[in-house]
Amino acid sequence: MSDVAIAVVDAETPGNIGTIARSMKNFGLDDLLLVDPPELPRESEAYGYAGQARDDILPNAREISFDELADEYHTVGCTAITNEDDRKHVRYPFVTPGELADDLGAIDADTAIVFGRERVGLTNEEIARLDQVCSIPASAEYPVLNLGQAATIVLYELRDVTVGETQLPDTIHDRAEQSEIEGLHDQFADLLDAVGHPEEKRAKTRRLFRRVLGRAHPTGRETTTLRGLFRQATQRLADDEQ
Amino acid sequence: MSDVAIAVVDAETPGNIGTIARSMKNFGLDDLLLVDPPELPRESEAYGYAGQARDDILPNAREISFDELADEYHTVGCTAITNEDDRKHVRYPFVTPGELADDLGAIDADTAIVFGRERVGLTNEEIARLDQVCSIPASAEYPVLNLGQAATIVLYELRDVTVGETQLPDTIHDRAEQSEIEGLHDQFADLLDAVGHPEEKRAKTRRLFRRVLGRAHPTGRETTTLRGLFRQATQRLADDEQ
Repeated sequence: MSDVAIAVVDAETPGNIGTIARSMKNFGLDDLLLVDPPELPRESEAYGYAGQARDDILPNAREISFDELADEYHTVGCTAITNEDDRKHVRYPFVTPGELADDLGAIDADTAIVFGRERVGLTNEEIARLDQVCSIPASAEYPVLNLGQAATIVLYELRDVTVGETQLPDTIHDRAEQSEIEGLHDQFADLLDAVGHPEEKRAKTRRLFRRVLGRAHPTGRETTTLRGLFRQATQRLADDEQ
Repeated sequence: MSDVAIAVVDAETPGNIGTIARSMKNFGLDDLLLVDPPELPRESEAYGYAGQARDDILPNAREISFDELADEYHTVGCTAITNEDDRKHVRYPFVTPGELADDLGAIDADTAIVFGRERVGLTNEEIARLDQVCSIPASAEYPVLNLGQAATIVLYELRDVTVGETQLPDTIHDRAEQSEIEGLHDQFADLLDAVGHPEEKRAKTRRLFRRVLGRAHPTGRETTTLRGLFRQATQRLADDEQ
């Protein structure tokens, strides 16, 4: 696993630095490097946009020269690559954010992900000094993302490298035990019986319901609730019968 | 494949709507639905932040009621789920943006991805009326993303469903032909010979260079350049010899 810092070169808008700081905190990073930053007073948009990163990442951001950045880190430049600049493709083989996450997860290096100016990004001279180039796959019609949005996507993709533990449980979908689901299917069959569903159609209808649940992967609560409901209906129908 | 619209409920900040419109254009979407939106005059931040989406997506955005939204679309609510609200987990099994992309790619439905207010997101009452709930995996310490950033990540993950063609070539890395790379290895061996590298170490050094290129997957241009350089060095060394 690599240690990952975020570097922003020559940003114009304090708000974008705040947005990037917030996304860093969302995805478990804390080392923000600034090359030629604008002034970032407490009352600036940088702090307004930083969320909880206003308490640590933003005030602890370090100014650094581009030379130091290039010399001290394994550097990955993020840049918009459009269909038009074919020459760039040839000169700079690039990775997508997903591939970058795989790369950085497999090595151990002090890495800086480098973002450029709002309008023009990183210059060709700057990119030439960086070790890797990363570009985000987007619509061929309009692939140029806003600086803050681009950084957020790269940080999101790096989460497996940078976030120790996410807020989401490992098993995101708390699926019911198969035996509970089978109990629901049995109850469904009893219900078909109780409502007098035509006998020749019952197997087909049960299969249909099995397909629905098969795609839905119901939770324990959902399964219990439906089973209880069907049981109640089945009993009421049986009572009416007598 | 599903048709996907983006709905924003009760946003306070025009700038966020602009950011979302721009990301929609970056990832191939054009149908923006607004429930109780703020005023969006041409001179507002909505247009300032929209990039090229100011020409189409933003002026064509449609106002819609929450009732119409819930009735007319397969709806996916996006909401921050933190460790703390365990009750929400039970009540709403949720998908990650990556899983949502798989889901929507496999079905054919008019779908609306629904985002809520800046500070409080969607209410429990609103979420109860939506068909699926999506949450972004993030740092357990601070998983609450800014509205515009959250929307951008979901749109990025949906790109396989929504973007016909990205700006990046299918084969992102234009790796050299294996025969070219082998030619470079042969030239490297000649160079070792020409510099008088100890004979017993040559095989090991060649293996080392093979490992380096094996990880680097050099392009045709890189391979040709290095091979040319090594050839030149080899020839110069041979000339000196004579």
